[in-house]
Amino acid sequence: MSDASWLPSLTTETPEEGFALAVKMARVAVKLTQPDAAVRDAGRAAYGGNADSLIAASQVVATHFATVAAANDYWKGR
Amino acid sequence: MSDASWLPSLTTETPEEGFALAVKMARVAVKLTQPDAAVRDAGRAAYGGNADSLIAASQVVATHFATVAAANDYWKGR
Amino acid sequence: MSDASWLPSLTTETPEEGFALAVKMARVAVKLTQPDAAVRDAGRAAYGGNADSLIAASQVVATHFATVAAANDYWKGR
Amino acid sequence: MSDASWLPSLTTETPEEGFALAVKMARVAVKLTQPDAAVRDAGRAAYGGNADSLIAASQVVATHFATVAAANDYWKGR
Amino acid sequence: MSDASWLPSLTTETPEEGFALAVKMARVAVKLTQPDAAVRDAGRAAYGGNADSLIAASQVVATHFATVAAANDYWKGR
Amino acid sequence: MSDASWLPSLTTETPEEGFALAVKMARVAVKLTQPDAAVRDAGRAAYGGNADSLIAASQVVATHFATVAAANDYWKGR
Repeated sequence: MSDASWLPSLTTETPEEGFALAVKMARVAVKLTQPDAAVRDAGRAAYGGNADSLIAASQVVATHFATVAAANDYWKGR
Repeated sequence: MSDASWLPSLTTETPEEGFALAVKMARVAVKLTQPDAAVRDAGRAAYGGNADSLIAASQVVATHFATVAAANDYWKGR
Repeated sequence: MSDASWLPSLTTETPEEGFALAVKMARVAVKLTQPDAAVRDAGRAAYGGNADSLIAASQVVATHFATVAAANDYWKGR
Repeated sequence: MSDASWLPSLTTETPEEGFALAVKMARVAVKLTQPDAAVRDAGRAAYGGNADSLIAASQVVATHFATVAAANDYWKGR
Repeated sequence: MSDASWLPSLTTETPEEGFALAVKMARVAVKLTQPDAAVRDAGRAAYGGNADSLIAASQVVATHFATVAAANDYWKGR
Repeated sequence: MSDASWLPSLTTETPEEGFALAVKMARVAVKLTQPDAAVRDAGRAAYGGNADSLIAASQVVATHFATVAAANDYWKGR
């Protein structure tokens, strides 16, 4: 594992930062799922694409955010 | 991070406010997933679109509401 | 918030009432997602529509029921 | 609420009975989502229909089973 | 209930066995959802079918595995 | 069970390794769901395929990552 891990921790300072992390996790998952160039193009299309694709991508974000929020004990002090 | 965070906290006074927050989170996810103008139009179409798109968007809301409800310990005193 | 909140609490007496609440939450989510009239029509179509739409709507109900059940500690004494 | 509740409890003796309950919950959700006759027909089609509909219906069962299993503390003594 | 329950317990020795159980649960759900012969054929098609059907079936497996893993306290000693 | 289990443990050192494990679990699920050659080809198509297939595959990864993260108590010390 390189020093520059793309996911060093699930801990964030704020809910907003946690949400941004969930968006990043959804994007990276597409790349890791199939890393070659043709698929990267498909990935780009996925996120710039039609309404249903956008909603489906948002569902992935929501699933990751649930994980990140649990990891941060829901930032309960805030 | 600006002072005016769109998601300063997952804590809400009531379940109804928590539900409204989940709807907001679903909307913001679409914008963050792909922030350029063409996609914003697609996003609008997503929420004004056909029945299946609406149900899929509701699924995203349901996933976020599960997170918000857990963050509020399900508003158990109410 | 008005006195007549549509979601004053996640607590219900019985699992059956909790299930009915989950169905209501799924319906309200459609309205909140996009509240104008054209979408309300689409929403109606969603629930009276084809088999796949019905199953997708049932998935939303299942997700909300998981939240309501956790809020009620699964009605474990029953 | 009638004495003959269709969902008096989430507690079951065994995992297998819990799974059967999850199947029942998925079926009832379709009926509650839209109770009129035309939709009941659509519901029947949903469960007798094509492969993708069957998988989608299985996803609803899986979501309900997760709830039932948690309610039974995963039948851990078994 | 017969002695030969198809799901006597959610407990498994290893994560790999738990994953196999989740695959089995996904398969059985299709049969229980609609047990007649025509649907069994559709079920077979579901699992031998196209890429999107396979991914959807994998989603059902993932949901069941989450339940099985929780039931085994994530096999944390391993 | 062979000594070379493909899933000996859900424990990983880092979140990044946990994410890679979730990607692996999503891939294996496709193979276990239907192990014959024709389906393996379909599986390959699934991961090299269009944008919607990629997003759906990412959803499976997100579900598995939630399980792996819980198994590691969210790597909270990091």
